[in-house]
Parts: sequence; C-alpha cells; structure tokens
Amino acid sequence: MTNVPQDSLFIRSLHRQPVERTPVWVMRQAGRYLPEYRQTRQQAGDFLSLCKTPELACEVTLQPLRRFQLDAAIIFSDILTIPDAMGLGLYFSEGEGPKFSRPLQNAAAIDQLPTDGVIDQLHYVFDAAALIRQSMPAELPLIGFTGSPWTLACYMMEGGGSKDDFKKMITCIYQDPAVAHRLLSKLAGVIVTYLCEQVRAGVNALMIFDTWGGLLTPAAYLDFSLQYAQQIIAAVKKKHPTIPIIFFTKGGGQWLKSMASTGCDALSIDWMTDLAVARQQVGDRVALQGNLDPRVLLTNPQVIREEVAKVLASFGHGSGHIFNLGHGITPDVPPDHLEVMIRAVRELSPVYHR
Amino acid sequence: MTNVPQDSLFIRSLHRQPVERTPVWVMRQAGRYLPEYRQTRQQAGDFLSLCKTPELACEVTLQPLRRFQLDAAIIFSDILTIPDAMGLGLYFSEGEGPKFSRPLQNAAAIDQLPTDGVIDQLHYVFDAAALIRQSMPAELPLIGFTGSPWTLACYMMEGGGSKDDFKKMITCIYQDPAVAHRLLSKLAGVIVTYLCEQVRAGVNALMIFDTWGGLLTPAAYLDFSLQYAQQIIAAVKKKHPTIPIIFFTKGGGQWLKSMASTGCDALSIDWMTDLAVARQQVGDRVALQGNLDPRVLLTNPQVIREEVAKVLASFGHGSGHIFNLGHGITPDVPPDHLEVMIRAVRELSPVYHR
Repeated sequence: MTNVPQDSLFIRSLHRQPVERTPVWVMRQAGRYLPEYRQTRQQAGDFLSLCKTPELACEVTLQPLRRFQLDAAIIFSDILTIPDAMGLGLYFSEGEGPKFSRPLQNAAAIDQLPTDGVIDQLHYVFDAAALIRQSMPAELPLIGFTGSPWTLACYMMEGGGSKDDFKKMITCIYQDPAVAHRLLSKLAGVIVTYLCEQVRAGVNALMIFDTWGGLLTPAAYLDFSLQYAQQIIAAVKKKHPTIPIIFFTKGGGQWLKSMASTGCDALSIDWMTDLAVARQQVGDRVALQGNLDPRVLLTNPQVIREEVAKVLASFGHGSGHIFNLGHGITPDVPPDHLEVMIRAVRELSPVYHR
Repeated sequence: MTNVPQDSLFIRSLHRQPVERTPVWVMRQAGRYLPEYRQTRQQAGDFLSLCKTPELACEVTLQPLRRFQLDAAIIFSDILTIPDAMGLGLYFSEGEGPKFSRPLQNAAAIDQLPTDGVIDQLHYVFDAAALIRQSMPAELPLIGFTGSPWTLACYMMEGGGSKDDFKKMITCIYQDPAVAHRLLSKLAGVIVTYLCEQVRAGVNALMIFDTWGGLLTPAAYLDFSLQYAQQIIAAVKKKHPTIPIIFFTKGGGQWLKSMASTGCDALSIDWMTDLAVARQQVGDRVALQGNLDPRVLLTNPQVIREEVAKVLASFGHGSGHIFNLGHGITPDVPPDHLEVMIRAVRELSPVYHR
C-alpha cells in the first residue's frame, strides 16, 4: 500500500494524520523473551558485544519483524552507549543489569569527561542503523533512540542500576546544582550529535528515554530533566526539521503538559496514566504512544484482547495514537502472547479510524 | 500550652483548624539512622523481636522524641504484622528486606488464609500502643498505622520485596480478579479490627500506608486499592467517628481527587507532587501531609533550610498542612540534619499561620 516509511501508519500517526488502523510496536521488541534473540546473544558472547557488532545488532532487530506484524523497528542498542564511549567502562553482570567500572566520583571527574571523539566511539551504532535500514522492508520505519541526559547521569554517578533511587545524582542536584548542570549539558551536547548521526544513517524517527525523570520533584524535573530534553529536541529539529521525536518520561504522568511543550511530536505514556486523561491534556499538540501494562502479556489471550480493547477505547476515535506497552516487554513473556496483542490491535483498532 | 492530644497542632491541623505553626513528624522517625535505635535493635536480636517486645518497641518509639521537638509519635511496628499473624512467617534477611517463609502460592492458599484469631496474634502491637501512650508526653498525639490491603497482598503473593514490581499480585488482578478481591476483602476485614484495637489501646490518629498502589493502572488502582481503603475508613469511622485518618499512596499524585473522597481526613503526599497543585485539587476537603524529598536530608544545613522553605511556601498560607517527608527517612541520614529540618519548620512556618 505504502512503500516509503514517511507514508507508514507509524509516521503518519506521529504527525496525527488520518490512518486506517492504529500502528503498533513494542519497547524492547528485540529482546530476551524471544528464543532466537537468546541464541544470537549467546553467539555474541555478551549483551554489549551484541550491541557493538552491527551484523548481530541488525539480526536481532529484524527477528521480531519476521515473527510479528509490527509497524516499526527500533535499533537494537542500549541507552548507556554514550557513557561507555565517554570512558566509563560499561559491562553487564548476570542478573544485576548494567554497571560501570569507572563511575563518576566527583566534580573533577565530571569536568574531565571527554566530549571530543565520543561520537567516533559510537560508529557501531550508526553502522548498525545503516545496515538495518538497508536490510529491513523498505516501507517500514526505523526508530533511533537515546537515553535522556538525566537518566544517563543517574547511572553514571551511581555506577549502574540503583536500589535506592539513584541517590548520588539526586543529592548532587540539591547540593551542587552547578556541577549537575555541567554534566547534563555535556551529555545533551553529545546526544544531539548522536541522534543526528542516527538520522544520517537512515532512521525515520527518534525516541528519548527518560527512564528516571519520575524520581524527581516537579521543580527538579523541569530544571534537570525536561530542560535538556527540550534543548536536544530543538537542536535536532534545527538540523532535521521533519524527523518525528517521541519523548518518554516514566512516571511523568503529572507533567504531560510541560512534556508536550518541549517541541516533541509524541509522548510515550506509561500504564499509570489514563490515555483519555492524557489526550484531554495534550492531545491537540502531540500524538500519544502506549500504554498497555506490560504485565498483561503474562496472562492469557482472552485477558490480553480485553485489555487491548480498553487501551484503544481509552484513546478513543481519531488519529494520533501509536499502540505500545507502558514500558519494555519483560523476558518472561511468551512470544505467542505478544502475537495475540498485535493481532488484537490490528483487528480492534480500525473502528476508531472511520 | 495544650495538655491533651486533641488540642495538639497535629490533630488540629488534620482537622484543618487554625494553628500557630506547622506541625512536623517524620515517617520512620524511629529508625536505623539513630545510633540509639541501632543499639536497642541489637539488644532485641532482630527487627521482628523489636516489634514484638512492647517494652523495646516503646523505647525506640520514644527515642526520636527525646532528641527532637517532634509534634507526633508513631507506634514502632511494621506494615507486615498482619500477614505474619495470618501464618505466613515473616522474617527479615540482612540487606534484603522482608520475606515470608510461606508466601501465598495459589487461590486455595488464599481461601484457607485464617481471619479468626489473627487479631489475638497481634496483641503485642496493642500492648506496645498502650505502653507508649502511657509513657510519652500526655499532650503529644500517637499515630497508629497499617499497610493497605493492596500493599499487604503484593508482599504476601510475592513472598517479600520485589525486583519486578510485584508481578504475581499484578498478574492475579488481570487473570483472576475474583481471587484477588477475596484476598483483599479478607485483609480489609482484619485491618478494620486491627485499627480499631489500636484506637482502643490509645492511639490518637491512624495512617494507612499504600506503598505500592502507584504501580497500578488508574482503573486497577480504584478497583484493587482505593476501594478497600474506602471500606476500611468507613468501618473505622463508624466505630470511632472522631479519629483522624491519613491515607498515603506512594506514586498516587494523579489520583488525589479520588483519594480525597475515601472519607479520610488527610492525604500524605510524596515528593513527586507539588503541594500547591495538590491543595488546589483537594485542599478544601482534606489536610495535606508532606512532602520534602527524603534525599534533601543527605545534603547540608543550608540546602535543608532552603528546601524546607520551598515546601512550606508550596502549601502556602492557612491551616491543614502537616510537615513530613515524601517517604520514610533513610538509614544514611545524619541525625543532626533532621534536627535542622525540624528547627527550620518551627522557625519558618509561623508566618503562614498569621
């Protein structure tokens, strides 16, 4: 029907243009819940080698497209590639998630953090993007992405994931706000180039993952997270005015109005916010992506169909909705259950677009 | 000045009556950040023995009152006493938090869960309440508390804390809602008696901790968490019409209007919601408690004073504010920092009550 990504349901929905049915993709759709992914990952040795080998990153990006009727692909990569390229030494310890061997210990370390040459260390991402773009169906859009400066800074100060809500970075914003801003500015600058290079490599849309913005007070969120997202979006749009950008702050349901005024084209919504409420607040300005509770995929086909129907109904009639989960798909989901979800979106959504 | 708890700043503020300054207490004010607490706990052997020995529970409850000018005490206990009394075998493993040796494995286990005799197993809580009431300053109010049915159910199904957001209970509400409701109803029934017995033992206010309600979709929150809080509040108020009840859902900032219509007297607000916004939404119906980011106490006296000033200003002029943190105080807080916070509230708040 269409043969360029710009005419796809996904891109048209991001621009809130009329579509025949609601497009659907899933955060972390190339992931551990797929046996073929686990096999390729084993072949790669570890998660980071998988990210850093364009052929293998391409392979796992395409895997879910072979199984499911998805409306977009997303580059297989990690939000922590930038800190790794800055020299922090990213590794993944089994069952414990990401770690840095050289976390940021103090203000001096932040000021010494390199920005020159960082992008050169990230060529594997752009190479993967180009390879994926040329290997995947021509009409399907490819999404590039980044972590937000705030989210990257949380991990970089903490040295990895956190049991206590990233208290190092959060204490820093209260105690040394100028230092925090220097780190966030540096990251924002690198991220702009990182995203622009992904566009140059062929991606058709971008997404900013602000996974930990929801840990902040409303005032701190505006100052330390949203401000930088806004800067990044403005700078990328200046260079690539037509590239659609999706912004996602997990736990950001109270701040949707501010988020919608960053210049982004769409907000990704977690499952704690009702799409009807979100649409009422910002639906005249941005598209909305989401927001099935990922745990629904652990139940059974009947429940999955019912819950998909509820999400579609909560957005309601008209364009500007991209179906997705409220957060990433988890490793314990049976792939058949995702199939049920996608089929339900395809079957149940056309009525909302008549 | 006053010599019964009913005339205290805390109780008057819960009823939104005029006060001279904003009262202040702190969630988990009897806790590991205090060296004298750590000593008593060592003496008790473990955390649960401390809870179950009224003399020691009384001692640690009084410890923060000796150090700080606090406007309320809260019984030293744990939200998981009820599941323990139901036979699940609560224990605390070092650094890993609460665990149950016999978690709920299936619907049959839920149906076999005893309710008769459960309250008899909890006499240590009522004994502690009575002892604390008679040992503490007569004019100071004592708060009793419980976990919400939803929050207890999350731990009971999971077998302890959770790395993956309590997926067992959350999957259950989608897949077997009737089973989930049977568990929650049972818990609500026991909780009503538990709270009424605390009132009989002498507590002057009650607080319901819904720590995990914020993990739910808006619809599921109303159905599986808020509904039961409402039932509990109605039943307790029927027996004790004048006892003030504070309701706290962490992450519930989007649902304050629903929370305020449960019949509670006050909402406790986490640090992710602005008190000005909360007051605008519900301030004509309930008092508000909160909401300093607990991480502020890890900084320094100057920052603590500034951030206290911001919280007071965000609530603004008039009665109906109880100063507190947005969540419990953490073990790494220097006690002097709490002193600075309390002094700042006492010094900076009178201007808002003129």
